[in-house]
Amino acid sequence: MRLGRQTIRHDQPITIAETFSLAGSYEAKGNFKDYFDLVMKDDEWGCKTFEATEIKMQKTAIEGCLQKCNLTPDAVDCILGGDLINQIVPTAFSARDFDIPFMGLYNACSTFGEAMNLGAMLMQEQFERILCITSSHYATAERQYRFPMELGTQPTPASQWTVTGTGCALLTKESVAGKPRITHSTIGKVKDLGITDANNMGAAMAPAACDTIVTHLKESGRDPAYYDLIITGDMGRLGRDIVHYLCKEEGGYDLDNLNDCGSMIYDVKQKPGQGGSGAGCVSLSFCSYLYKRMIQGELKKILLVPTGALLSKDTPLQGESIPAIAHALAIETEV
Amino acid sequence: MRLGRQTIRHDQPITIAETFSLAGSYEAKGNFKDYFDLVMKDDEWGCKTFEATEIKMQKTAIEGCLQKCNLTPDAVDCILGGDLINQIVPTAFSARDFDIPFMGLYNACSTFGEAMNLGAMLMQEQFERILCITSSHYATAERQYRFPMELGTQPTPASQWTVTGTGCALLTKESVAGKPRITHSTIGKVKDLGITDANNMGAAMAPAACDTIVTHLKESGRDPAYYDLIITGDMGRLGRDIVHYLCKEEGGYDLDNLNDCGSMIYDVKQKPGQGGSGAGCVSLSFCSYLYKRMIQGELKKILLVPTGALLSKDTPLQGESIPAIAHALAIETEV
Repeated sequence: MRLGRQTIRHDQPITIAETFSLAGSYEAKGNFKDYFDLVMKDDEWGCKTFEATEIKMQKTAIEGCLQKCNLTPDAVDCILGGDLINQIVPTAFSARDFDIPFMGLYNACSTFGEAMNLGAMLMQEQFERILCITSSHYATAERQYRFPMELGTQPTPASQWTVTGTGCALLTKESVAGKPRITHSTIGKVKDLGITDANNMGAAMAPAACDTIVTHLKESGRDPAYYDLIITGDMGRLGRDIVHYLCKEEGGYDLDNLNDCGSMIYDVKQKPGQGGSGAGCVSLSFCSYLYKRMIQGELKKILLVPTGALLSKDTPLQGESIPAIAHALAIETEV
Repeated sequence: MRLGRQTIRHDQPITIAETFSLAGSYEAKGNFKDYFDLVMKDDEWGCKTFEATEIKMQKTAIEGCLQKCNLTPDAVDCILGGDLINQIVPTAFSARDFDIPFMGLYNACSTFGEAMNLGAMLMQEQFERILCITSSHYATAERQYRFPMELGTQPTPASQWTVTGTGCALLTKESVAGKPRITHSTIGKVKDLGITDANNMGAAMAPAACDTIVTHLKESGRDPAYYDLIITGDMGRLGRDIVHYLCKEEGGYDLDNLNDCGSMIYDVKQKPGQGGSGAGCVSLSFCSYLYKRMIQGELKKILLVPTGALLSKDTPLQGESIPAIAHALAIETEV
């Protein structure tokens, strides 16, 4: 049932039956280290190119998720996913190895939110099982968006660290006791307030995150305190603080329970700049730390808000500012 | 209702209420010249970069489509779309100028099929009006995927000509007499038979096109002759012939009524190689020639099969073969 222009309350809450999380070795030194299903021993993982590594990461996560559920690929109706690499190569090239229908998505680092929301909407009627997956890799993202790593370029104060990791979630229609369910989806709009610094993604994405959170709360009629945690995708610490400020100024909400996967995933001693970023930041964090804490009953109701900056490496050089988007989904164990 | 693993018959056929087509000047010399809503006088169209031109193209097509329907942006529930440019910049940057929720898609040149199928599925329940759009531009695609145009590189015999154009379609729930409706959707799988020549997209995409067409016919229980036309997105002449051969050899279907937007859009005297290609090829062709012929009653039932090659400029250089995908949708005026 549509509660507003952007928010849907799912007539049938959709179960997140299982997840699989695969992290890089740097991520395995961070705060979520005890929650990962698998850790790569190095950034290459036996592949000749970093792009091939990212393809292998997605493939391994899908296989891992299917294995945990005792399912074969023919039991899955569709893969919905994406990543940051040009033409979403890691996702498309991983999908070719499964005999599963595929729809590729791109909304930058918010793609996991787009996938989970689309999956939950599609499953109201026709589908039984959908896999949602996104990934990122520090080395593929660095060389595509910034500088060759060999150059040893100094990061700027507002910059973030692209997460090497992937998270894959299996959505099912049947409810399973104790498993988190997607109850609401809020589809974001593109927002651009004129930020042009491609090394300050937090500032570029904050207006979109604020707009989606405030819209979700208003359209769902929920108080922020309804949620144990409102958690954005990859704002970083600076971006999270801007979101907190904007939600208060623009929406009148003082969010005590706001946090951010990118701000939480690393130990500050690792010096990841403002924190983690990338399309794998929110999917890895959700499919490991957040999902497992929900299963253990430590978190019962969360609002997950994957955030994305929609630039390419060329658009800042062409004088464009940075549009951004955020999608929100309410995930609850007690419905 | 699901008829098979990949094919859905829509309980509520979804009306294609209106379309808007915007073509480049080269396309306006081709076979569909009498069907375009708007033609650009040159490839720049007053913009400093070709990417900015493609953004303006999408924006103009959305505005044009809304204007034809007498709608304001707030009447639209969602934009579903994509293009070929890295991080789907033309689509995302156009979407920032509309106050409409947005979900970005990427399945290369088959994205228009993905958008229309997703739109039709999402509208079964919650949505009233969805805009589907894809675009391509000869100059943005050439410099991203191949060589700088200034180099004057000779095209190879199997190569195609990227269409400069965009097509935007408005989907609605209410049926309107005489307007085409989407009745069936078939979601494609990624197929890769090992083609490595990035200048022979037709060969790379043919197995995916064949797989989707044969699957659609089998799962829908329809005979090919049910359709006035089975039309792929941008196979080109060589690719179309391979699809015809494969459907006969692999599926047992001798498709007399098979054709291809890329093979039809240009006059052979224009020397477009094997024909048109690009994410705008099928959306421009459908939103002009095919849609208007359906409105005029000259075509009553078509199977539209947008086709896409999922490579990036880097993957052939990294030794990868070319995965491809095709999505099919049945569009009918008499349901």
